[in-house]
Amino acid sequence: MSEKTSVTAAIGGGVIGGGWIARFLLNGHDVNVYDPHPDAQRLVNEVLSNAERALRRMTMAPLPTKGKLTFVSSIAEAVRDADYIQESVPERLDLKLKIFAEIEKHAQPDAMIGSSTSGFRPTQLAEGLKTPERLFVAHPFNPVYLLPVVEVVPSAMTSPAVVERASAFLTTIGMKPLVVRKEIDAHIADRLLEAVWREGLWLVNDGIATTQEIDDVIRFGFGLRWAQMGLFETYRIAGGEAGMAHFIAQFGPALKWPWTKLMDVPEMTDELIATIASQSDAQSGMHSIRELERIRDDNLVAIMQALKAKPWGAGEILKSYEDGLYAKAHAHAATANTEPSGPLALHTDRVREDFVDYNGHMTESRYLQVFGDATDAFLHYIGMNTDYLATGRSMYTVETHIRHLREVKMGEPLRVETRLLGYDSKRARILHELFGGPGDELLATAEHMLLHVDTKKSTASEMGEELRRALANIWAYHKTLETPDYAGKPVRNIATDGL
Amino acid sequence: MSEKTSVTAAIGGGVIGGGWIARFLLNGHDVNVYDPHPDAQRLVNEVLSNAERALRRMTMAPLPTKGKLTFVSSIAEAVRDADYIQESVPERLDLKLKIFAEIEKHAQPDAMIGSSTSGFRPTQLAEGLKTPERLFVAHPFNPVYLLPVVEVVPSAMTSPAVVERASAFLTTIGMKPLVVRKEIDAHIADRLLEAVWREGLWLVNDGIATTQEIDDVIRFGFGLRWAQMGLFETYRIAGGEAGMAHFIAQFGPALKWPWTKLMDVPEMTDELIATIASQSDAQSGMHSIRELERIRDDNLVAIMQALKAKPWGAGEILKSYEDGLYAKAHAHAATANTEPSGPLALHTDRVREDFVDYNGHMTESRYLQVFGDATDAFLHYIGMNTDYLATGRSMYTVETHIRHLREVKMGEPLRVETRLLGYDSKRARILHELFGGPGDELLATAEHMLLHVDTKKSTASEMGEELRRALANIWAYHKTLETPDYAGKPVRNIATDGL
Repeated sequence: MSEKTSVTAAIGGGVIGGGWIARFLLNGHDVNVYDPHPDAQRLVNEVLSNAERALRRMTMAPLPTKGKLTFVSSIAEAVRDADYIQESVPERLDLKLKIFAEIEKHAQPDAMIGSSTSGFRPTQLAEGLKTPERLFVAHPFNPVYLLPVVEVVPSAMTSPAVVERASAFLTTIGMKPLVVRKEIDAHIADRLLEAVWREGLWLVNDGIATTQEIDDVIRFGFGLRWAQMGLFETYRIAGGEAGMAHFIAQFGPALKWPWTKLMDVPEMTDELIATIASQSDAQSGMHSIRELERIRDDNLVAIMQALKAKPWGAGEILKSYEDGLYAKAHAHAATANTEPSGPLALHTDRVREDFVDYNGHMTESRYLQVFGDATDAFLHYIGMNTDYLATGRSMYTVETHIRHLREVKMGEPLRVETRLLGYDSKRARILHELFGGPGDELLATAEHMLLHVDTKKSTASEMGEELRRALANIWAYHKTLETPDYAGKPVRNIATDGL
Repeated sequence: MSEKTSVTAAIGGGVIGGGWIARFLLNGHDVNVYDPHPDAQRLVNEVLSNAERALRRMTMAPLPTKGKLTFVSSIAEAVRDADYIQESVPERLDLKLKIFAEIEKHAQPDAMIGSSTSGFRPTQLAEGLKTPERLFVAHPFNPVYLLPVVEVVPSAMTSPAVVERASAFLTTIGMKPLVVRKEIDAHIADRLLEAVWREGLWLVNDGIATTQEIDDVIRFGFGLRWAQMGLFETYRIAGGEAGMAHFIAQFGPALKWPWTKLMDVPEMTDELIATIASQSDAQSGMHSIRELERIRDDNLVAIMQALKAKPWGAGEILKSYEDGLYAKAHAHAATANTEPSGPLALHTDRVREDFVDYNGHMTESRYLQVFGDATDAFLHYIGMNTDYLATGRSMYTVETHIRHLREVKMGEPLRVETRLLGYDSKRARILHELFGGPGDELLATAEHMLLHVDTKKSTASEMGEELRRALANIWAYHKTLETPDYAGKPVRNIATDGL
């Protein structure tokens, strides 16, 4: 069924409803939208344009042909042909009950009916329905078009087959349905959020912290952790090799301390501790604590590097830390290495985990990444720092000739020797030699032509005086070096060259 | 001072202390470690090896020469020459008080003394000290060597100059010090965490959800949001153009509902609502809601793509969603062009989020990645499939000449045209032309020499018959194409070529 669903209905087109509509449409399903708000059409289209932009950035995989969007003027019209119906109207029980009664009257007998409610239990929503077996909560999170999680909460009357079909359908539109086994006000995630929200309100109320300060401790700290592991798995690691029970033993006493305004806590009986420890074993026991640490660390590194490219949040901190390191290294290099008598040694690296292909060898494009990093180090060295870049000038690589000589494997060291082959007022021709592996052998070479550009006009331009001086200084020595015979040569021609 | 700090002391070398030691050492500071645990040396070295691995993955910026690590047998020895002292012993007030008294006796008069305490207020820690002006809380988060946040909490007696020097120092080791203005048990972050922890315990206790289920709603949902924006900024967006006060008005009633076990909430007076709204304006008012939405969405996309590469958590969901999309698209794709009359069109892509540098242009090494993917598509096309590779034969790129002609930006389409320039029994010389951007213009070219190899011996070898047949088939057409005049040329020589 999930593959063939072609008609969906969205009752309510606000921020949450609009996010659902985007997921349905972009995954190839037609959508009938019912929302009596006079501005509904404009509002839905606004959410859609943001959603489409984001989804198309998130995946390069080939999405099916977009579904058809139809605004209708009654619930009857919206649901009549729909296989999947999603309600996302404001959190008022009386309103929701009226809507479900109307949906029930007009929907196909096997249509699935999900509610986006944050707080109501499905049993409350099914009150008075003749066919409660097709109703369930499908509670998503904003932005619905990006965040995968959706809490699927059946009532005791919901048919297990419906839960299964709905979960399968939600999976095909890129979501992660989590079936909640016991219905409870606010389900699971919003309970946790509500606790944080209440504590946050206290902190502002008591003048301890501002909204900004509260947000900062989250996004520079535990928020980064929770993007990849939850509360319990994180604390399992904190407990070390002794595990979850040890963590609870260590921090259990804090439950009696005034560490929160919300003092109502369950009693930490041996039974509860054993339950948590065994659930945690089932969840994470397949990894040792050391493994979990490395997984966590690699995830955090990837997240912070991703945010560095923006730069935003923790990525902005990382960037300014690195800027400081580069500035120091540059100040150091400028004094230490002003009279190069041989090739410059400005860049070292190691074959990182994500550099290698399935054979364990460094991937083709990573060679150019290492050479590109060496070029950056060379540009830093000749004085192209943040201040220089801020003036709208830079140097771009316009030509590259790489020769691959030897393979190198995961974890092996890499170092680059760089020499200047020539320069003029707008260009520099450089040669990198990449050495590495267990024998520090020549692995690859790269000849580059760098062009000085006006970054606003995107045209070639004259270098600043400081760059030219630095190049002249290097050239005084490098012109005396013998140019390797492979430099300045084209890619070999099969017709004329031997193997 | 911060730049010149050369000696630090770590009192306590557990998970938290070890994380501090790693930050100090890798940022060039010597560290004296005092920890009476019989296994301290081994435990610290374990944390250090993980920390060093992670930090060296996080930044490729040139770290200073690593500091010297010394294990000492008394607090006196540890702190005597230290400029910065960090205490990270277990959460027992009596123990901490004894240690601070001992530190005070032996430390330099201007040494900064930070405590890693999660819960104690600095005034509690300073009890009985003669020089409380140099003591403050510096509370980090696990893993200390990666997460930037550190809560700096002064007591009323702490000198503002010390807070300033400590913040400057912590910034140079890559951290984000957040100065907490009012001391309070558990500071700020742990109050929020404690509230979630307590709610989580209730959920497990009441049998609503397992540790795995709780963790999943976090890491597939709001945890992703919090890696880049906090509680209040996220809700500001949810409030839409009407902003924070609207959000509170909408969800305020929920505070009276049983959405958490933790029912103690501040009264939502007009004054508190106004405080929150104005703090939120100060925090985020420089961005419109639409702008915030796009920033949030781009951050979420970047985080999920980073996790996809592992794949882990939300990245694993994204990957399996994409696998499904590719499988469907592949089922649709039927015939390949077996009789090429022009260049082969075997590869298309788009400039992905993680392809661009801070200028929004595609990064140098990503060109070779796209060309490498096009080469893979060409090899697939001539019959190098999994079965062929399984026989221990492959083709490697041994030479590459790239010419960059035009820039291309995030999200723009890319397509590659590929032609065969020649081949013999062991080699193929191919030329890729990369087109793209809004005008489908020529962006870059790449000439490659591919060599057929015996992957076990790593030596050149004869191609299989099927590959040669496919190449002959292509060559029959491609030999009639005019070879572009830039093919077979070297990188331009500054001495002899004009600009």
